[in-house]
Amino acid sequence: MPALLILSRRAGDYHALVAAARLPDLSSLSATDVETLPANVGAFDLVLGEPSLISRALPRLSSLRWVQSTWAGVEPLLDPSLRRDYVLTNARGVFGPLMSEYVFGYILAHERLMFPKWQAQQERRWDPTPPGRLRGRLIGLLGVGSIGAHLARTAKHFGMRVRGYTRTSASCAEVDEYFHGADLRRFDADLDYLVSVMPNTAATRQLVDADLLAALPPRAVFINPGRGSVVDEAALARALTEGRLAGAVLDVFQTEPLPADHALWRTPNTIITSHTAALSFPEDIAPIFIENYRRLLAGQPLNYRVDFDAGY
Amino acid sequence: MPALLILSRRAGDYHALVAAARLPDLSSLSATDVETLPANVGAFDLVLGEPSLISRALPRLSSLRWVQSTWAGVEPLLDPSLRRDYVLTNARGVFGPLMSEYVFGYILAHERLMFPKWQAQQERRWDPTPPGRLRGRLIGLLGVGSIGAHLARTAKHFGMRVRGYTRTSASCAEVDEYFHGADLRRFDADLDYLVSVMPNTAATRQLVDADLLAALPPRAVFINPGRGSVVDEAALARALTEGRLAGAVLDVFQTEPLPADHALWRTPNTIITSHTAALSFPEDIAPIFIENYRRLLAGQPLNYRVDFDAGY
Repeated sequence: MPALLILSRRAGDYHALVAAARLPDLSSLSATDVETLPANVGAFDLVLGEPSLISRALPRLSSLRWVQSTWAGVEPLLDPSLRRDYVLTNARGVFGPLMSEYVFGYILAHERLMFPKWQAQQERRWDPTPPGRLRGRLIGLLGVGSIGAHLARTAKHFGMRVRGYTRTSASCAEVDEYFHGADLRRFDADLDYLVSVMPNTAATRQLVDADLLAALPPRAVFINPGRGSVVDEAALARALTEGRLAGAVLDVFQTEPLPADHALWRTPNTIITSHTAALSFPEDIAPIFIENYRRLLAGQPLNYRVDFDAGY
Repeated sequence: MPALLILSRRAGDYHALVAAARLPDLSSLSATDVETLPANVGAFDLVLGEPSLISRALPRLSSLRWVQSTWAGVEPLLDPSLRRDYVLTNARGVFGPLMSEYVFGYILAHERLMFPKWQAQQERRWDPTPPGRLRGRLIGLLGVGSIGAHLARTAKHFGMRVRGYTRTSASCAEVDEYFHGADLRRFDADLDYLVSVMPNTAATRQLVDADLLAALPPRAVFINPGRGSVVDEAALARALTEGRLAGAVLDVFQTEPLPADHALWRTPNTIITSHTAALSFPEDIAPIFIENYRRLLAGQPLNYRVDFDAGY
């Protein structure tokens, strides 16, 4: 009988959701941290949980067959020193709506002057400064996977124009114009908003560099709810300090938590959201595990399998 | 030949947009304020502009036939002491998208803890507090005209549940459940967000009173981008002070600008946006005038005619 170890900060929620599905032939046990793992952890062949916890339990999971990550990002499990003798699946297809809430929430905050108006209010000052609006603005999506496609739909709902930059694909109907390969400069020109939802791969590392930032108009805002590795942070800090960008909304960084002495805490018009853009809600993630467990029993290939070499 | 007076703070923009339409048989003149009106103002039979300016020019407009308001609200022209011997049309059908940007911008700010996270950032404090999300939240729309219907569409885009309170109509497919008449208490129960987009009429005056506010759960946020007259401001201030509401986002007030000693400047979790929720953009409003001018020449009834007695 398959034995499931739930290893998650929210193990209680996941346990309840998995139990409610009454999956056949499954025994399970929950732990919220590596320190509280049971002595017989080597007997568990399936694991559902956070990669940051699972990576520390890996040496003891001697029967491991399959890990379902509750996150999209599985970096902690990709370290070359770690074993890769199991099937790794991650969470996909559920972060588009959350990412849309994050990206368009902060775009609206920028257009509607929410922070300046809030400052005026603290001084009890009636501030009739006209806000801007989304309709007609030009957004550029670095990456048009399932998250980028959802962002494109929300952008169109608000009447924006949409550019997409991808390796090859061009299948999202809500993207007005696609760009590929070395065509980044043309993709960049005239953008009001640049949003990175690229995965962390060798090809995307520091893609948002000094050149790309210099190609943006000074009214542009850069938004990164994706991966910190995509950005040359020193170049971004310089562009913000020198006023060559209207602002940045940053959720992810090369080092997290962002160190207290990091330049991006002090650059003008910068919003730091502490890696909370698209957290995993158990009610979204549990169904991915449940569907994959059914596929496992039926001998079908699992959804969202991660290629250890590609990194996603 | 019809003679058009453009009387608007943005007369230059309107003049350019109307000129670009090359309307037949039209002469026009622009003024940005009543003090700069030409001596022959009595010769103009058509006026396009802001009701607050036009109301002061009314006595001198001896040939007046038609006023096209650049605003939705025409209160300054409804004063019983003013003449009503002309056709008054207002701006409609263009504010839905702007109202959606306002309402969902501030709902997202609330769910995503934008102001608390911004405060944490001022202290250079990494703040991983999990934000909420829109999906599954329940929004109640007081009024489901063209603006309310647009809000309902945006709510559905974000996966929210939608209630509508209207006098009689129930035609918007994006409203899950309609309420009418005395059924306000049931409409109110369990709402996460209550949004008023009611017009200013005798029937809506102080509709949002102590009873209605008391029927909301304490997690609810009240949002008013509509009309200040709809709210009992003293009752709202008490509910906010006593923590019986999670917050209020207020664009309009019984007296504007909001007096410096008004309680709502000081109540907790209150956002004041100084009547900027849905300003008139000339590129949206000029086409309404242009279409109505063509209808006038063709002897057709004008769009969006205001009933002076009903007030909208």
